[in-house]
Amino acid sequence: MYMKMALNLAQEVAGQTSPNPPVGAVVVKDGEVIGFGAHLKAGGPHAEVHAINMAGERVKGATIYVTLEPCSHYGKTPPCAELIVKSGIKRCVVAVKDVNDLVAGKGIALLQESGIEVEVGVLEEEALKVNEAFFHYVRTKMPYVTLKTAASLDGKTATHTGESKWITGSEARVDVHRDRHKHDAILVGVNTVIQDNPSLTARIPGGSRNPLRIIMDTRLNTPEDAVIVTDQKAETWIFTSNAVSDEKIERFANHEGVRIFRLEEEEVTVETVLRTLGEKGIMTLYVEGGAAIHASFLEAKLFNQVILYFAPKLIGGREAPTVFAGRGFASIEESMELVIETFEKIGPDLKIVAKPKVV
Amino acid sequence: MYMKMALNLAQEVAGQTSPNPPVGAVVVKDGEVIGFGAHLKAGGPHAEVHAINMAGERVKGATIYVTLEPCSHYGKTPPCAELIVKSGIKRCVVAVKDVNDLVAGKGIALLQESGIEVEVGVLEEEALKVNEAFFHYVRTKMPYVTLKTAASLDGKTATHTGESKWITGSEARVDVHRDRHKHDAILVGVNTVIQDNPSLTARIPGGSRNPLRIIMDTRLNTPEDAVIVTDQKAETWIFTSNAVSDEKIERFANHEGVRIFRLEEEEVTVETVLRTLGEKGIMTLYVEGGAAIHASFLEAKLFNQVILYFAPKLIGGREAPTVFAGRGFASIEESMELVIETFEKIGPDLKIVAKPKVV
Repeated sequence: MYMKMALNLAQEVAGQTSPNPPVGAVVVKDGEVIGFGAHLKAGGPHAEVHAINMAGERVKGATIYVTLEPCSHYGKTPPCAELIVKSGIKRCVVAVKDVNDLVAGKGIALLQESGIEVEVGVLEEEALKVNEAFFHYVRTKMPYVTLKTAASLDGKTATHTGESKWITGSEARVDVHRDRHKHDAILVGVNTVIQDNPSLTARIPGGSRNPLRIIMDTRLNTPEDAVIVTDQKAETWIFTSNAVSDEKIERFANHEGVRIFRLEEEEVTVETVLRTLGEKGIMTLYVEGGAAIHASFLEAKLFNQVILYFAPKLIGGREAPTVFAGRGFASIEESMELVIETFEKIGPDLKIVAKPKVV
Repeated sequence: MYMKMALNLAQEVAGQTSPNPPVGAVVVKDGEVIGFGAHLKAGGPHAEVHAINMAGERVKGATIYVTLEPCSHYGKTPPCAELIVKSGIKRCVVAVKDVNDLVAGKGIALLQESGIEVEVGVLEEEALKVNEAFFHYVRTKMPYVTLKTAASLDGKTATHTGESKWITGSEARVDVHRDRHKHDAILVGVNTVIQDNPSLTARIPGGSRNPLRIIMDTRLNTPEDAVIVTDQKAETWIFTSNAVSDEKIERFANHEGVRIFRLEEEEVTVETVLRTLGEKGIMTLYVEGGAAIHASFLEAKLFNQVILYFAPKLIGGREAPTVFAGRGFASIEESMELVIETFEKIGPDLKIVAKPKVV
């Protein structure tokens, strides 16, 4: 019950803690919650600090529930394991061990050496899900990648004449804004910028974070007057190739918040972009397309999740474009095997979340 | 409760009563079920007859629940409304009125005139669903058409090289056999016969009906040695055009159970096929494809339901074939608007049932 509460707290702040994991903590004494907290922002206090502060003097002899192993190293803040020892807490329940080499097992050891009773693995599966992006990031140093697509039930993103507006309904569009808000960065291809001139901001009632905007643009064809370049509503990073001249790059010099990454390759590849984003602390990436960009991620098999919206329409047409362009896999055997995680109606549309099958 | 039981009985025999509707009946007296029945086969006794027979002498003074208005006309069997009057039943609860002009309201009137208390509209919505195919057939004189498709989550039916085997899992294939069993006829295009040489039988444990097999084949290119032509496991009707010669048709003269329909048109059209099947008493049609056939039904907007199986795979590829070939609709506005009725996991796959939106 208390761990569930701690996990809920972590889930509420998922997306705003990067490159740190979302963590929740609950302090319990005599069958009552006496404090709780979550890690709200990288650089700020960890979940345990907020929870112990809220508990105040009553914390002595209490139990603390934490969704992730308390840290034992001096990072931007002092180690939580030490704080727990000092606070007089007697028992610590941990959902899941950290995978970060700097921490893994050490926080638990420190607590145990100090005579604190430690239990590990409570609601572990749920905690693994909450920490999925963080663990992936720590392991691979690349962001957790979500591909987002929207199509008719027959997999078309437009008619054969190219018309594509309003395939999905307003509820699905709101859902997309919510998902943008939860990600560190959104990625699109330059063709999407040229064709749709999107703002890629997260517009949800009550306000929201605008994620960083990433454009994959081998030839640096992003228009200087694109909304995404001029609106200053979030930073925009453009990844381009070593084939692009200094003059072409200088065009963007006066645009505040726009940064050009000239990569050491002739074609901007998914892997280099992901490695660079990882180095810059981007933990979660939401890839909105278009079809050629989605195909690059698919064919590189570098993604962690696909979110597919299906509108209850049939468009038909051998030539009508589909969600993934590119060449595609040559055989069913080579194709990308997924597992469907969830599926639900969002207004009249269907939202399916699937992840690569772990073999 | 009793009407729900009657509806369940009707549902169990749906598919085996064509061109009659599936009907269930339950006779209740002193709070106990004393008889029940269903219409099992066209030409055989109606549901009410079985239920009243089972009740025996106790039927006097009882209540009968029927999923569809009792008939009042002499068809292949005497009218049920008369039987109910003679039996001494005092009250008749009806889920839904018939739409058949020969019957609509007349059965109910006959009962009321004879002093039987009649209640209409109990679980009407469910009953409309059970009778959906029958009502459509009565109104339009054409079969209720279900398009069935199977694709990867990105809407591909094969890779760009044409490989297409085993896209969906074994559970979905069993589900397809169950759906074949429930239909009067299965329809495919001649290309499917040539490429896959399918048997199109319903293979389910415990035995099953093999539906009639229909081939749309404008130029009569069906191979004489196709399984569907030679196996005699069910009748096979081939619809061809007036461009085909007598000699070509005579090739099939010695194949028992194979019937050629030479239509008065140069291209076999969906509408003519459906009208002909309607005349022959085919109430439900399951269209398995391929993509060109599906496109014909889509573009003619002559179908009542789509069942889409999605396998958790991504195949990708601009050139990889999709579920509907053909030209497709030119604008989103013209495209076919559906309503998603149900969606569920079938093994690892997703099954979506959608119907044309009624505006």
